[in-house]
Amino acid sequence: MAGSAEVISIGTELLLGDILNSNAQFLAQELASLGIPHYFQTAVGDNPQRIQQVIQTACDRSNLLIFTGGLGPTPDDLTVATIADFFGADLEERPEVIADIQQKYAQRNRSMPKGIYKQALLPKGADVLPNPTGSAPGIIWQPRSGITLMTFPGVPSELQVMWAETAASYLQEHGWSNGAIVSRMLKFWGTSESTLVKQIGPLLDQANPTVAPYANLGESRLRITARADSYAAAEQMIAPIAAEILGRTGQDCYGADADTLATVVGDLLRSRQQTLAVAESCTGGGLGQMLTEVPGSSDYFYGGVIAYANSVKQNLLRVEEASLEQEGAVSDAVAQQMALGVQQLAHTDWALSITGIAGPGGSSPNKPVGLVYVGLATPDKTASSQVYRFGSSRPRDWIRQLSACSALDQLRRALI
Amino acid sequence: MAGSAEVISIGTELLLGDILNSNAQFLAQELASLGIPHYFQTAVGDNPQRIQQVIQTACDRSNLLIFTGGLGPTPDDLTVATIADFFGADLEERPEVIADIQQKYAQRNRSMPKGIYKQALLPKGADVLPNPTGSAPGIIWQPRSGITLMTFPGVPSELQVMWAETAASYLQEHGWSNGAIVSRMLKFWGTSESTLVKQIGPLLDQANPTVAPYANLGESRLRITARADSYAAAEQMIAPIAAEILGRTGQDCYGADADTLATVVGDLLRSRQQTLAVAESCTGGGLGQMLTEVPGSSDYFYGGVIAYANSVKQNLLRVEEASLEQEGAVSDAVAQQMALGVQQLAHTDWALSITGIAGPGGSSPNKPVGLVYVGLATPDKTASSQVYRFGSSRPRDWIRQLSACSALDQLRRALI
Repeated sequence: MAGSAEVISIGTELLLGDILNSNAQFLAQELASLGIPHYFQTAVGDNPQRIQQVIQTACDRSNLLIFTGGLGPTPDDLTVATIADFFGADLEERPEVIADIQQKYAQRNRSMPKGIYKQALLPKGADVLPNPTGSAPGIIWQPRSGITLMTFPGVPSELQVMWAETAASYLQEHGWSNGAIVSRMLKFWGTSESTLVKQIGPLLDQANPTVAPYANLGESRLRITARADSYAAAEQMIAPIAAEILGRTGQDCYGADADTLATVVGDLLRSRQQTLAVAESCTGGGLGQMLTEVPGSSDYFYGGVIAYANSVKQNLLRVEEASLEQEGAVSDAVAQQMALGVQQLAHTDWALSITGIAGPGGSSPNKPVGLVYVGLATPDKTASSQVYRFGSSRPRDWIRQLSACSALDQLRRALI
Repeated sequence: MAGSAEVISIGTELLLGDILNSNAQFLAQELASLGIPHYFQTAVGDNPQRIQQVIQTACDRSNLLIFTGGLGPTPDDLTVATIADFFGADLEERPEVIADIQQKYAQRNRSMPKGIYKQALLPKGADVLPNPTGSAPGIIWQPRSGITLMTFPGVPSELQVMWAETAASYLQEHGWSNGAIVSRMLKFWGTSESTLVKQIGPLLDQANPTVAPYANLGESRLRITARADSYAAAEQMIAPIAAEILGRTGQDCYGADADTLATVVGDLLRSRQQTLAVAESCTGGGLGQMLTEVPGSSDYFYGGVIAYANSVKQNLLRVEEASLEQEGAVSDAVAQQMALGVQQLAHTDWALSITGIAGPGGSSPNKPVGLVYVGLATPDKTASSQVYRFGSSRPRDWIRQLSACSALDQLRRALI
């Protein structure tokens, strides 16, 4: 088989804006990674007539129809019945699905909702696409020559397991996958998209692998994408391009793919058997939260002080009153004293501090919204600090996020 | 005019799964609030032929076509040219758009990208839909009888401003809006969707206003939606239903619409002129971050201690070694001592503490993942604590989020 896919999302909740169509994004990524072309996505409500219109349109322009949503037990879940009707097939009750539903409800000790057995009514000739984590199975079906269709429930976690365990390998085994497309996302902090573009120059014009720049919330990214006959061959095409980019961009690349600044800093600290504490003013705990999102972060992160009020800066962190009065809470001097203060309190090798103006209030002519100082105390008990100007028109969340990431990056550069 | 809308999202990045189609959700919500029926959503790549196919299909089934994406200066931005071609209209350069682009780049002191003036080429007869925050304007156009179309850039923030400032009022003034649909979302913590459903019973079966339950990450919600001839009339229909629900559900409702637990707790503290500190173990700063997401939170939030390591619990918060050894860091005794410790350090009226096992590691047979204690120190310097069992199969992020929200709710109930 070969051809192109269309993702059809069914549910009135999509048309009311109650939910974000994250399934369409997931399926798009998965189809791309299998090298299956995918030209159209459609969303439609729980209305049989309009669903049939959409199926007709999809059959005219696509060969692989992937449906999500409308597999539940309530009367407005009518995806399967409408598809069967469109292709003129009868529904039949599948005993293996009934048995599976009964077993799942018995295990969970829950009473079965009314109408649950509707989920066992599938078109004659369709294969069951098992749902290991939910009660509504999907189908894989070739209702007519040249058309393959699959149905999935709307619950993203159920869909994702069904895709990984059954659908993806079905598509590969049945010749849908045109080789493999593999991507690697290189992640950068402390540089800009336009600087990266200048540094890597002609690499951006290559056809295979391609290199594409992205920017998001202060982070810049370069995605290398290779298409080849196999996953391994695509991986091999990526490696030299990644090496070339790293050679040209130096220390600005902090990691790839699932890496975050917090995981990278954590790995560096763990490998050195060193420890970290934080003192946070404008981020209010956000840096600590970022660090502790990483399981096992207690190996190197001890904690710290949220010094939102000046009284806490003075009483707990021993920031000097004179510094607060003369230079202000948002200053190099206070950032450095905060870092040294928390390092001493928590007995750690390293300490980071953040003090700044996240806005919208609290600014003055000399100290605009977006002005942030990050302090770093090093194992030799000295402190340095760096100033950032994130821009006074930025929203509060953005400034806080940039502040925490910049602090992690400052420590990362000190550790490498 | 009357009829139904179709949202058409254009961009190959959607078909590769690079971005989530949040514009479709935003537009769906806005169309629903204007009472404009909306039956189909389509996404298609930057391909003129396929875009034309999609326009043809949309013209056959919808009257209001809302396009997003593909308005930029690069060669693959071809939404406007393709639409003009489909309807047989010529493009013309609009001097007012050129002037606007020049002014914006001059203000920002940036060099203009190649091809930027392409954005001033609009179909003859189309009105400019101004883009106050970006350089690519949209259009509002009736290319033929019975069809109205609008274009928006793909950047969500630009689209949203353009919708609010121009498009929404255009639709109202031109008779698209069938009265008004108004919703109020009541938000609950510390109860369950099924409990709420039992409490409000027959209210769920009403036709107008409707009441619909939702659940998300520990929070339960009831959405009341009224349809009426005017916004005010719809509001008036909602009020008695909201009052009835509040009467039946007691203190479990913490707020509505944009309220969060952090804003509600903040308002209560501010009105009492009282202050708060936090001591966080497993949340690692997440509770402080949640509190300081609220601008002006420095009025009542002083800060606190991130006591991730036991040494910090002992040295800073004066948690007794005996308690840590005998009862463990995750216990009522330690939660209470942490709350009292930080209350004393920060000199606040109230203090919250959190200690628990967020997983995936760190559990023992007696203390499974998901076991969390929240301590509360009151203005009379006494402490209480509450135990939560969030379930050992929950992901780390979920447990941390539930812990922080539960702490805020515990304080909220103490304050009311």
